[in-house]
Amino acid sequence: MATKVIIDTDPGIDDAMAILFAWLVPSIEIVGLTTIFGNVSVEHATENALRLVEMMGADIPVAMGARRPLVQDLREYPDYVHGKNGFGDVLLGKPTSKSLDISAADFIIEQIMNHPNEISLVAIGPLTNLALALKKEPAIKQNVKEVIFMGGAVTANGNVNPAAEANMISDPHAADIVVTSDWPVTMIGLDVSHQIVMTESYLKEVHNESSFAGSFLHDISGFYLDFHRQYGVDGIYTHDPSTIAYLMDPNLFSIEEGEVRVVTEGIACGKTIMNRDQNKYGKTDWSGIPKLKVCMGVNNVGILELYRKTFINSKDNV
Amino acid sequence: MATKVIIDTDPGIDDAMAILFAWLVPSIEIVGLTTIFGNVSVEHATENALRLVEMMGADIPVAMGARRPLVQDLREYPDYVHGKNGFGDVLLGKPTSKSLDISAADFIIEQIMNHPNEISLVAIGPLTNLALALKKEPAIKQNVKEVIFMGGAVTANGNVNPAAEANMISDPHAADIVVTSDWPVTMIGLDVSHQIVMTESYLKEVHNESSFAGSFLHDISGFYLDFHRQYGVDGIYTHDPSTIAYLMDPNLFSIEEGEVRVVTEGIACGKTIMNRDQNKYGKTDWSGIPKLKVCMGVNNVGILELYRKTFINSKDNV
Repeated sequence: MATKVIIDTDPGIDDAMAILFAWLVPSIEIVGLTTIFGNVSVEHATENALRLVEMMGADIPVAMGARRPLVQDLREYPDYVHGKNGFGDVLLGKPTSKSLDISAADFIIEQIMNHPNEISLVAIGPLTNLALALKKEPAIKQNVKEVIFMGGAVTANGNVNPAAEANMISDPHAADIVVTSDWPVTMIGLDVSHQIVMTESYLKEVHNESSFAGSFLHDISGFYLDFHRQYGVDGIYTHDPSTIAYLMDPNLFSIEEGEVRVVTEGIACGKTIMNRDQNKYGKTDWSGIPKLKVCMGVNNVGILELYRKTFINSKDNV
Repeated sequence: MATKVIIDTDPGIDDAMAILFAWLVPSIEIVGLTTIFGNVSVEHATENALRLVEMMGADIPVAMGARRPLVQDLREYPDYVHGKNGFGDVLLGKPTSKSLDISAADFIIEQIMNHPNEISLVAIGPLTNLALALKKEPAIKQNVKEVIFMGGAVTANGNVNPAAEANMISDPHAADIVVTSDWPVTMIGLDVSHQIVMTESYLKEVHNESSFAGSFLHDISGFYLDFHRQYGVDGIYTHDPSTIAYLMDPNLFSIEEGEVRVVTEGIACGKTIMNRDQNKYGKTDWSGIPKLKVCMGVNNVGILELYRKTFINSKDNV
């Protein structure tokens, strides 16, 4: 039986990659996309999600999520990373379909409560929708199968500033709720995703050997490649698809368990701080919260091969 | 010519080790000890510094420093680590000598300005005195030879909580001033000192092969050993003496350069966050400040051998 997955997303170039990737994997059933502000506005993210679903010819509902963070102000959208339209300014046209009438948080609650212990909740944007769902229906904690999110950085520097990763700093209060709640969470942050680089030649190979999916991947990656090249990286960091790779094969990752908090103020705002259990403390702000699984290492050859195979094998399906 | 050193200190068991160690090294001339609250009160730290100097039969002036941090409240003294008297409750008697009439900050300013480019300022407690000296006489920045401090943690967890190392959290505002000022600073934090463990048998060996210095080291370490053993560490972390080892042989350490900030609020208060230059950012709170040298690795066999040799060779001198 396929794993039922909700992807909470702010597409976003690597979001599109993650969604396409998940859709190409036979053992995964995407039961819905929920959208969030982040790489673009939530309205734009919703349009992009709908366009993607139409382009894939898939029957996947899309529910629109929060417009702004729980507490802090909305940050500027990083159009220098993902382009103004979120897809590297590759034009896709307006979607003809519409999003659901219920909110992302309500969709998440409904799906989890209707399919107890069956839904894997994969979050690849700011964690506002997850925090809202937890607040409205705490019982999702006992009924979700697992939660996997892309975000944070334990020993690595952030990508927004030395402290903060983008998804965390976009709504640190929501993120702190998600990582301190008692549900089965796995964190995949920059400690891992900065080790997974798709080079230009890798992307070309996937483009040449697969049909539409690989081509789309290649096309929307041009802008993203340029952004990375500016900063001396020869290729693109593969953040969001890591969550789907984890679903398929957790053994690609090396995992530590520990309590995690997200800083909500000051120069460290958005920083994830993990208690790696090397010291024993008295009572601290990390005391009494459940441990997360945190991916600290990755078999980067294995994961790139997994992506390549998945896209190439899709040739006849799409 | 010997290197002139001021040691700013809150003795403290590993402080005493650092001072003894520096005093046994022929190429180092301790021109003064300045004291600070931290492991004990500043009054107690001053008594302990005077006692140490008397015990060593040395002629080293002691200047008393700040009673409390720049901004935040004084934290509780960690008598469970260093004992109530700061020397593992090994009784040394009251000192008969007195501290100088000038403050630690004034002594630091006077020495640096009178000996331009000759003074190495070694700080092994909270950094309040250094911040006060910088505020009163900014010209010390151009006239100090170098500043070496023990404190912080870049990728390692803190020792007070997962975020904070003890010296940093004891006065984070002062620490942030010290690490963001334009003077030649080297940071030696838990990333390094948690790799240097003196085991009980190592301490016994030094005790047996040296005279008074090794014996004193052994005696005051009993309490410290018990503290570490409670937390599953077979031996004692050798924090403060690393600064002196660095003075003698910087090649024992692997060094990275980068901008460092100290967090002054919230759950991350006291955390040192270093820009390790793996990403390029727009303007951040790390922009425009000078780079520090940060010790990220250490030849721990080499450094323990350096300590052993220094203590054992001192046999006939003390």
